[in-house]
This record gives sequence, C-alpha cells and structure tokens, in this order.
Amino acid sequence: MRIGIVGCGGRMGRMLMREVLDTPGATLSGGTMRPGNPDLGKDLGTLAGLEPAGIVSTGDVDALFAASDAVIDFTTPAGTAAHAALAGRHDTALVVGTTGLAPDQQAAIDAASKTAALVQAPNMSLGVNLLLALVEDVARTLGPDVWDIEIVEMHHRHKVDAPSGTALGLGRAAAAGRGVDLAAVSDRVRDGHTGAREAGHIGFATLRGGDVVGDHTVIFAAEGERIELTHKAGSRAIFARGAVRAAIWAGGKGPGLYSMRDVLGL
Amino acid sequence: MRIGIVGCGGRMGRMLMREVLDTPGATLSGGTMRPGNPDLGKDLGTLAGLEPAGIVSTGDVDALFAASDAVIDFTTPAGTAAHAALAGRHDTALVVGTTGLAPDQQAAIDAASKTAALVQAPNMSLGVNLLLALVEDVARTLGPDVWDIEIVEMHHRHKVDAPSGTALGLGRAAAAGRGVDLAAVSDRVRDGHTGAREAGHIGFATLRGGDVVGDHTVIFAAEGERIELTHKAGSRAIFARGAVRAAIWAGGKGPGLYSMRDVLGL
Amino acid sequence: MRIGIVGCGGRMGRMLMREVLDTPGATLSGGTMRPGNPDLGKDLGTLAGLEPAGIVSTGDVDALFAASDAVIDFTTPAGTAAHAALAGRHDTALVVGTTGLAPDQQAAIDAASKTAALVQAPNMSLGVNLLLALVEDVARTLGPDVWDIEIVEMHHRHKVDAPSGTALGLGRAAAAGRGVDLAAVSDRVRDGHTGAREAGHIGFATLRGGDVVGDHTVIFAAEGERIELTHKAGSRAIFARGAVRAAIWAGGKGPGLYSMRDVLGL
Amino acid sequence: MRIGIVGCGGRMGRMLMREVLDTPGATLSGGTMRPGNPDLGKDLGTLAGLEPAGIVSTGDVDALFAASDAVIDFTTPAGTAAHAALAGRHDTALVVGTTGLAPDQQAAIDAASKTAALVQAPNMSLGVNLLLALVEDVARTLGPDVWDIEIVEMHHRHKVDAPSGTALGLGRAAAAGRGVDLAAVSDRVRDGHTGAREAGHIGFATLRGGDVVGDHTVIFAAEGERIELTHKAGSRAIFARGAVRAAIWAGGKGPGLYSMRDVLGL
Repeated sequence: MRIGIVGCGGRMGRMLMREVLDTPGATLSGGTMRPGNPDLGKDLGTLAGLEPAGIVSTGDVDALFAASDAVIDFTTPAGTAAHAALAGRHDTALVVGTTGLAPDQQAAIDAASKTAALVQAPNMSLGVNLLLALVEDVARTLGPDVWDIEIVEMHHRHKVDAPSGTALGLGRAAAAGRGVDLAAVSDRVRDGHTGAREAGHIGFATLRGGDVVGDHTVIFAAEGERIELTHKAGSRAIFARGAVRAAIWAGGKGPGLYSMRDVLGL
Repeated sequence: MRIGIVGCGGRMGRMLMREVLDTPGATLSGGTMRPGNPDLGKDLGTLAGLEPAGIVSTGDVDALFAASDAVIDFTTPAGTAAHAALAGRHDTALVVGTTGLAPDQQAAIDAASKTAALVQAPNMSLGVNLLLALVEDVARTLGPDVWDIEIVEMHHRHKVDAPSGTALGLGRAAAAGRGVDLAAVSDRVRDGHTGAREAGHIGFATLRGGDVVGDHTVIFAAEGERIELTHKAGSRAIFARGAVRAAIWAGGKGPGLYSMRDVLGL
Repeated sequence: MRIGIVGCGGRMGRMLMREVLDTPGATLSGGTMRPGNPDLGKDLGTLAGLEPAGIVSTGDVDALFAASDAVIDFTTPAGTAAHAALAGRHDTALVVGTTGLAPDQQAAIDAASKTAALVQAPNMSLGVNLLLALVEDVARTLGPDVWDIEIVEMHHRHKVDAPSGTALGLGRAAAAGRGVDLAAVSDRVRDGHTGAREAGHIGFATLRGGDVVGDHTVIFAAEGERIELTHKAGSRAIFARGAVRAAIWAGGKGPGLYSMRDVLGL
Repeated sequence: MRIGIVGCGGRMGRMLMREVLDTPGATLSGGTMRPGNPDLGKDLGTLAGLEPAGIVSTGDVDALFAASDAVIDFTTPAGTAAHAALAGRHDTALVVGTTGLAPDQQAAIDAASKTAALVQAPNMSLGVNLLLALVEDVARTLGPDVWDIEIVEMHHRHKVDAPSGTALGLGRAAAAGRGVDLAAVSDRVRDGHTGAREAGHIGFATLRGGDVVGDHTVIFAAEGERIELTHKAGSRAIFARGAVRAAIWAGGKGPGLYSMRDVLGL
C-alpha cells in the first residue's frame, strides 16, 4: 500500500509520515509542500525525525496522486477541495482530516467520491469513532424516560470553542440513537435556578485547563445505576494513526464517501 | 402481565414486589414463602412497604406458577431447581437470578427450557448486561497487538471474593470478543517484579472499601488513547428492576433458555 | 454526651436519632415534634427503625435543651432561629444544618453564640468539609499562572439549582486560598466561541441525571499534570453522621460560632 | 539564580535545560557530559531544541559546580555520589532525582548536606509531592475504624514492577498519617476467597496498559461517602519542572537534606 502525504512539512504532516514509515505493509510514496517551503527537497525520513527514507519532498501534487494508492490530507479547506479533484481524476483514495469546509468545498469532496474512495471524519482517532458508534447504540437501547444522557469534556486552556466538536458529535450520535434532533433536546448550559431536568434532554458540560489533549465522557444515568463511556486522548499522534488506518482501508475500496465508522466496521 | 415472586419475604423478594407493583402493565400475581415464616398471610403490598395490595403471601408455589405469566426467583440453588420444574410443567416463564447452581441444578434449568421461557443471568441489572455486550463488541474491534484490556472493580468491605463475579464475566466477554480463553490470558494479580505486560493479556484489579454497591470499569489502552467503559451501581434495586423487565419480556416468549442480552436485544 | 433532636419525626430527624443511638458514648436525650404530629408520644427508638429506646417524642423543646449537652437541628429557618435562642439561654450546644436563613435568623445564631457553642455548616458530611479545607490549602499552593481550577459536580435529575451550593462553596474555598473574590474570577458557563481560558479563573460545570446523591470534583490542571480532589456521596446518612460528630465535639466547647472545619481540626 | 545540569546530553538532561531556559529568573550556568559524548562542545540551547544559548557543553563537572548556585542531577547512583561530594565542597545546592542509591551512595548525600543544601525526592513532580502531603494529612484525620484506604495506579505496558514506587510512597504517607507501619497493614494482592476486608489495612491495585505516563488515586471509603485524591501525569516534563523549582528554592537555603515537601512548604 503506497501512501502519500500532502502538506508534509507541518507538525501534523511530519507525524503522518512517521506513522506511515512505522506501519508494516505501508510504503511512503511521497510528500508535498507548498512552493517556497525551505524544507523542499529534504529527505522525508529526516523530516519525520527518523532515519533517511531515500525519498525527498516535492511540490508536485499531481505526481503524488499518480504514485499513491491513498493520500492523507490534513491541510486547509481550499487545499482539500483541490486535492479531492485530483483523487477523483487519478482514482486514488483520499483521507480527509481537514475541518471547516465551506459548502462548495464539501461539494468537491462529494463529486470526487463518484470515482474514488474518500474517507472523511472530523476526528480521525479510532477511539473517538468507536465511542461515537457505541453512544448511538446505547442511546437506542436506553430510553429517555429512564436514562438521562450527559456529556462532559475537558480540553486544554487554549481551546476557544465550547462544547468541543467531538462532544457535539457525541451528542448528535446520542440523539440519532433516540431518533430525535439534538438541537431540540440540548441543554448546553445550566446556571442559577434551572428547574428539574427534563426527560429526554442531553446535557453538556465543558472543562478547560492545562494542556489536556481531550477527554470525553458520555454518562447514561438512571435510578440506581450509571453507565459511563469515556475516551481519553493522551497524544495527537492518535489522529495520525487513525488516518493511516483509514488510508490502508480505503486503498482497496471502490468509489464512495466513507466515514471512520465504515473503516472500523461498526 | 401477571408476575409472581417466589421467596417474597426476604430483602430481595420485597424489593421485587415493590418493583412489580410500581411497573405499569405488570400485575403482582402472588408471592410465596417457606412454611413457618411469620409473615405468611400478610398483605404483599404492606410487606413491600407500599399500600395494601389486596393479596396475601402463601406457601403454595404450584398455585403461584399456575396463576402467573412469569415468576421471578432469587432464592437458593435447590429452590430454583424445583421452581424450574414447575415452570416447565405450567409453561410459565421463569427469571433466575440465583447463582452458584450445581450441575444437576443447572440441568433442571436446561430441561425446563424445553417447554418454557427461562431467563438466567448472574447480574440482572440492565447496565451491567449492556456493558457485557459492549465489552465483547469492543474487544472484537480493538486487537490485542495494540490495545491492552484492564478491568478494575470496587465493592464494599464485606465482599469475600476477588475479582467480583461480574468482573470475571466482563473478562470472559472481552476474551470471547477476541476468540481466546480467559484463563489463558488472565493477569489476576501483579506484585513485585512482574516484567513488562504481555500483549493480549487481560488484567484485573480489585478495590474494597466502605459500602460501595459495585463499580466496574473496563479499560482499553493503546499508545496515545484510552477507552473506558464503566458501570456504577448505586442501589441494589437495579437488580429487581432488571428482573421485572426480564419477566415482562419472557412472558411472551416461546420455550428456550435466554440471557439478559436477549432481553435487551443486544 | 446527651444529644437531643429537634424535628425528630421527619426523614432527617429519624436518621439523626438512628445515628445517635448507634454511636458509642452518645445518649439520645430526647426528640421533639410539632404539636399535632401523629407520632407524638411514640418511642424514639421505634421511630428510628431500631429497638425501643425507652424514651418518647414530646413537644417540649425547652425541656429538650435543658436535658441535653447538644441539640441537632435540621428544621426550618424560623424554627432554627427560635432554637438558637434556647441554646443561648440554656448554654446548650447547637448543631445547625438548616440552610437558607434570612439575615435576622442568622443574627439569632450569632447572638446565641455569645453564650453557647454553635456549629453551622451548609453540608454536614465529614468528607465534603474535609474537601473544602483541602481545596483551600491546595489553591494556596498552586498559583494561578500555572494551575487552572475547574469544579464539576453531578446531582440527581430533581435538583433545581446549578451549580450546587457545595460546588460554590468549593469555589469560594479555592478563591480564598488564592486571596481573590470568587465572583471576580468565576466562569459559570461556557458556550459557543468563548476564547481561550483566562489565567486565574475558576470554572464550573454541572451534570444532572438519575438519582445521584452528589459527586464533586475539583481539578487543578497544569502543563503535563492534573490533581483531582473528589467527594462522592452515596447516601444522605453521611449528613447525619457529620452532625452527630459535630454535636459530640461542641458539647465540650465554650461559646462561639464554629464550622465543620473547626470540628475536624483542619 | 545560576542553574547547571549534569548529564545534559540525555533525554532528561535536555528537558531540564529547556525548562531552565524557559524559566524567568533562572540562568543556565552550564551542562556537562561524559568524555567521548559526540555532543560535547555543542550549544546547550540547540541541544535543548531551542535557540542557541551562547554556551556549550563541557566535561568539567568541577567547574560547573563552581559556576552554579544549584545543580540538577538525574544521572546514575555512582555519578550522583560523586556530584554530592562536589556540592559539599563548593557549597552549591544539589537537586537529586536519581533513584536506586546504595547505602554508601546515600551516605555521600547525607555527608554533603552538612555543608550544602540538597533536595532529594523519588518523584520530582509538584503534583505527586503535594498529593503525598495531602494523603498523610487526610489519613491522620480519617480513622481506620471508619475509613478504608485503597491506592490504585496505572502505568504504561513497559513498566516492570508493581505497585509503582510512587504508589508505595503514597501508602507510606497514609500509614505515617495513621502512625502505623505500611508493611503491617498492606494488602498488596487480592485473588480468590479473600474474606472480608480488615479495618486499618491499605489496599493496592495495579493497572498496566498503553503508554500511560502515570495515574495515581488514593481512595478513602466510608459508609455512604468516598474521598478520592488523584494525580494524573500527562508528560515526563513535569519531573523537569519540579526539579527546576527545587533548584531555585535550594539556591537560597543553608545546609541540609530537604524533600520536595520542604520545597512546596507543606
């Protein structure tokens, strides 16, 4: 499986190359950077902090897609839209970890998925995606009259939005399991005299502090018992690891737009 | 749905009656006690700590099975074997929460399940049984080369065995998900120079203290991330609640030996 | 140590009597109820769910204070104000668990403390009061430039206010440890685009669900490490236990208004 | 405050230099390596992964002690014994994070503390040392008849001993708080038919998995409530941070052998 990395010069790109180089059965087919990057032409293994790999960074994205079974992309919305078109043209699988795409950029993804396999997910970690599937299943089983759902997350002090996108995703999964719309049942804040909790609602609580990479817990609470489903991220490397697993999976798939849940077979 | 309780005079029997009386759609069809119990002939509602129910406790177990769609049994292994025979004869569903059955007593359960619906589970709480199903599924997904499985539980200071039966059940579920035998991969204690952890093993850790009803957590730990699946029991009433749900479910089922996982549809 | 209970007929009063009767070295000196209560004249041990104690409930509060070294009061603000006056007159210690006192009612407490020992605390559990002391100490040690403080609590679905009084008390303790005013540094909700966390702030997060008696955690988060101080209440009996300990302590003290922190010697 | 690093070429040494260079008020006075190290003569800032600092690594340990107010040492037992002698001779403070010292090596530490300030601790993180102090205080307050103490820790899969040295340290702190010897009350494993928990014992539970840097929780459990004191290490950098804080503190102190508890003022 030949895997290429677009945007290989940044922190995430280097982490992705390291992960590919460390994965048995995967070959690093190349890495591209923007014109003018001082690391252009450097050995990709060295850039990844490993032994030299005998292949250097280039600016030729088209050649990268031609030489790869799958490409991983954590760049920018505009870059990702352009890369999706290349994936479609070359019938190369594309793994998209980029977030914040505008509708026309998302349309480029959708169009490319007619001729190539694309995997797209806001959080590429295996653990979080497994948790999403679990939460939907459990919410389907544990009815709103008896079981209250609460979601609590903690992230580092620099995070600027609340709740986290992953927490909201967990909320959507819980709501989907119950066949309701999250917006209609969401308790995003509680302060002062709130009155008693309404059955069927899904509560959010946000903690910020230190350098916490990301902890998420979904609590199902009934009379006399609680079930808690937790994910703790200790390193951003898990996003790279998930992306490489998705690339290997997608390399052998027909055209389509897939999620990490498809990759995991859940 | 007419539900009867054998052994209705003990703490668990009273809790079961209270749960039946509080469940819409369920009717308490009777409750039996051993001969000589001073509470024989007393109103079942009063015994349950509720308003009088207009029905009194008796010693006639055969009549109880004749008058019930389902009977709940948290008595003794010997009692349960006899009750199973009655269930088979009357085609009445039986929910068995009794544990520690000898092989011949289990054979009585198996025989009765040819003509009646029996539900048997070592832990009748919905939450724990859901956790068992989740753990098996997750263990199937998260392979032993990357993910380490650890199980930690806490119970009150009076508990005399370790790990808890439920913790061992969670271990068996994890092992089943991976297609291995728990006995072959179980790390039941760690002390002194243990050496590094072996891939594929399943570790247990036991905490005892205070009056904790029962907390169980199954940890899946990889490089950079952890998934933790937790159940916290706050009250023994959850065992009664699960049993009544099982009784309602089994009342409409054909012959067979079912688990709580069948009841939950997982 | 002779301990009396005002308002002994309610759920908390019975729990208090049970605790006194079960405490070596403590004697139940009496229990009072309002006129007209159908349980007037009944044996206090029986009311507490224990063996008969050979002493019956009365309506004579003045006699109760005369016959006691300490009295425990979880009644109403108005009742407590009157009881404080009796405590001051009889030089009998008074333990006040009543909350929501108006300024004039609080003034009655303060006045009585000139001639008797009074212990007043919004939460009488030993554990929470120990936690309050720990949090103040730790906040004094761990400066705001490096350590972020977050407080998360979970209570049952029927609770109508947020954050809990105890969570706010923990916040005040943390602020006191840092020599700041809680109101000036409090982040009570986070939703949407919040911007990065401000150094020195104290965050709150509120969870509601099931029948959780009360869990509180104070998190101190820095780069690379977290300290978490947690209290989990499993039963309301702990409030009774703390009150009896306070009564025994106060029975030997001179006049003054004391806190549970004084009782614990922290 | 001029701070020097012995053994500055290894992973911990580089981390220590980075921490000194990032700490306002601290100056990196030098760094030494063994003869033959290929990084001898390189800029210390570069070695630390930062901007050049204008000072290079040398092999002259004696000159390092002469030029420093405090030196930090995470080398080997034999190296540390030699460095302690230099500290004593130059009256330079020494922070010792090295573990596993033989009695004669420890004697060198003790001797040096007659003429210089030495800080020695098995775990230099602020959080763990604060936790040690908290645990001793809480164990003194919460008596063994009512409160059970349990200690649970989780570390990565490569750790070869159990329980961790820090868990055992927490156990010793708890035992010290209660005035007992840990060895006499320690429950290090539980398996099979254990019988009920004995009052006053301190239980240990060990979890291993993934790459967990180190989580420790001390649980105090009574009827109806639990207090849990937790430390979570997310990065080994906290050990460097604690060592630099100790160095700054010790730079101004008179001769003596100090602990991190002294540094923290607890």
